[in-house]
Amino acid sequence: MRRVAVVAGGLAKFGVRQASYRDLIAEAGKACFAQAEDLRPQDIEGFILSSTMPERFAFQTHVAPMGAEILGIRPNRLIQRVENLCASGSCGIRTAYAAIAAGLLDVAMVLGVEKMNMPDPVEGFLHMAAAPDREWDSTQGLSAPAFFALVAKKHMREYGTTEEQLALVSVKNHDNSTHNPYAHFTKPVSLEQVLKGRPISSPLKLLDCSAMTDGAAAIILAAEDRAREMTGKPVFILGTGQAAGGNNLANVPGWTTWPALKTAAAAAYEMAGIKPRDVDVAEVHDCFTISEIIEYEDLGFCEKGKGGAFIAEGKSRPGGEVVVNPSGGLLGRGHPFGATGIAQALEIVAQLRGEAGDRQVLNAKIGLTHNLSGMATEHTILIYGRN
Amino acid sequence: MRRVAVVAGGLAKFGVRQASYRDLIAEAGKACFAQAEDLRPQDIEGFILSSTMPERFAFQTHVAPMGAEILGIRPNRLIQRVENLCASGSCGIRTAYAAIAAGLLDVAMVLGVEKMNMPDPVEGFLHMAAAPDREWDSTQGLSAPAFFALVAKKHMREYGTTEEQLALVSVKNHDNSTHNPYAHFTKPVSLEQVLKGRPISSPLKLLDCSAMTDGAAAIILAAEDRAREMTGKPVFILGTGQAAGGNNLANVPGWTTWPALKTAAAAAYEMAGIKPRDVDVAEVHDCFTISEIIEYEDLGFCEKGKGGAFIAEGKSRPGGEVVVNPSGGLLGRGHPFGATGIAQALEIVAQLRGEAGDRQVLNAKIGLTHNLSGMATEHTILIYGRN
Repeated sequence: MRRVAVVAGGLAKFGVRQASYRDLIAEAGKACFAQAEDLRPQDIEGFILSSTMPERFAFQTHVAPMGAEILGIRPNRLIQRVENLCASGSCGIRTAYAAIAAGLLDVAMVLGVEKMNMPDPVEGFLHMAAAPDREWDSTQGLSAPAFFALVAKKHMREYGTTEEQLALVSVKNHDNSTHNPYAHFTKPVSLEQVLKGRPISSPLKLLDCSAMTDGAAAIILAAEDRAREMTGKPVFILGTGQAAGGNNLANVPGWTTWPALKTAAAAAYEMAGIKPRDVDVAEVHDCFTISEIIEYEDLGFCEKGKGGAFIAEGKSRPGGEVVVNPSGGLLGRGHPFGATGIAQALEIVAQLRGEAGDRQVLNAKIGLTHNLSGMATEHTILIYGRN
Repeated sequence: MRRVAVVAGGLAKFGVRQASYRDLIAEAGKACFAQAEDLRPQDIEGFILSSTMPERFAFQTHVAPMGAEILGIRPNRLIQRVENLCASGSCGIRTAYAAIAAGLLDVAMVLGVEKMNMPDPVEGFLHMAAAPDREWDSTQGLSAPAFFALVAKKHMREYGTTEEQLALVSVKNHDNSTHNPYAHFTKPVSLEQVLKGRPISSPLKLLDCSAMTDGAAAIILAAEDRAREMTGKPVFILGTGQAAGGNNLANVPGWTTWPALKTAAAAAYEMAGIKPRDVDVAEVHDCFTISEIIEYEDLGFCEKGKGGAFIAEGKSRPGGEVVVNPSGGLLGRGHPFGATGIAQALEIVAQLRGEAGDRQVLNAKIGLTHNLSGMATEHTILIYGRN
């Protein structure tokens, strides 16, 4: 199996954008080529587009060839779109990784995009009902905020986690995103602002929840030998894992602990030959504040039930034991479904290259991305390193 | 790179089905497990769902975990959906192939499904407008029948191809599907019936066009060592190729010849170490009769421009030089987008195993699938063999 490295990346500005689905693709793709100095569109052999539901948000399926065409890419080895809701981006990276590792091609771009805000904001929200299981969950009102609120309540009851601890995740991630020019939210929020926010689904308030964000992100992966020709700073995929544990809420096997996360993490750690304590910087899926707390625990950054203390003691802040979501995460940077996993990867790549500017984690050598999907049912993990 | 083999497959009956998207998944998945004697859902490490637009046809995205759940599968290595319009099924097989070849997992199911007929037939057709490029093609009325009619006219003018030759493709494929109990259309059609059919887009008439079909198909792939444990008749993937050549019609580089098909075929033949004449049986993408004629030519089964003569001389019929679409193809078996590529693979597997019943091609050793997508812009090819 061949080793695979990231050679370049680029982002479209995240936010509520006066831009079309196509515009976002063009913006991220061009930014990516701008970083890949000598690489031209005709050098890209494979193009994967990660996107969740352009069929609803943009009345367009068959989006991969459209994306390639916009960027002047004519893939001669691989072309497809990958979807796995909130984890579509990480699934796209894994797909390109496997195809390159297996020798089907040498160079691929993965571009994640979602245009979620529609002219009528209500319409965008209505389309979101196509994401949870329609027959079992959506029609019962079991939206993502409702589910994660139940999880938060249970975690609070079982482990004594507090609303303040939840809120501190939001404060940290909004602080971090003030340093990220591509983030949706670039102003800090105070603990009081989070705690006094508009209730969404108790105990979650407005700033405990990620927002509807438009955005795109592109990454170029290459086989090791080609990667070393293209950049002096390749960042390698050292390990990956993925697991699923049910779909509709009645079949979710865990509430305050996520078995599929542990399965995916164990596989990724083993493949990379590292332990959780070796991770210097992580981008994890903070779709809601409670998610990040459970992820500290299930990724092995702290003991089970101690996630609330982990954030309260500053261990996931810049300068802490493991810096979590230096980009601002989903809460600060934003969460355009298809783009999130790729934006996570690009933050880790920037950190490992020492190019993260004001967000730089000192001497970061090992980085991890965790991309959740569904009702915390699927977990996708990638581990990156400089060597 | 590890070798990968097909170990089992199963189909849901194709047709206008009084069955939901979920029902079709269950039907194909169960049929697949029924063929894989000793394999249980818990043995499946990866699950890929191939589907084009359940977001529109079934108001549901995030369909891969739903499909896995319906079948009792809890993937602990890989979970995602793959979309590339009409070629979604073949893309799913390639994705599983690469992941197994690269060593990320040993056993995966790929399940393709599309529920295209809606209670109001007009609604289903309207959703089809999300498939071609919306800004350039759909809004100009450039539906697939319109495009392929233009291609047919040009091929007729350039090479003297006749409406009768086009019609013979439909006659052959409907003949073949009379022997396929899973086919949408199981009655033969006469040359006269095809030629006197209702005009769709001149010169294409009703029976020159594939229909709106519901259906599903599932396949299980495994690494060679595991495959040999599971079945005495593994069928190996020997080669694959894929290429794209534009998206919107103005950028399609060829009309009567498809450069991306040639690129994909050349890669697949080279990887498999075979020549076109070595192919005993092929399932090709006859979305319209003209497509199959051009595919004879661009796959190298005959000289350029001689596709009309190839069908007229019976060379693609049972007993001919290369038996094309013994299953009935898209015209006879039907074309539920996500399921087509997998149904193609299953026909080839049955043929190479000598289990194709009344459709059996004598002593078939090498089989090929060709799955087209878009305005003939993307081409996906897989080559299978017994060893």
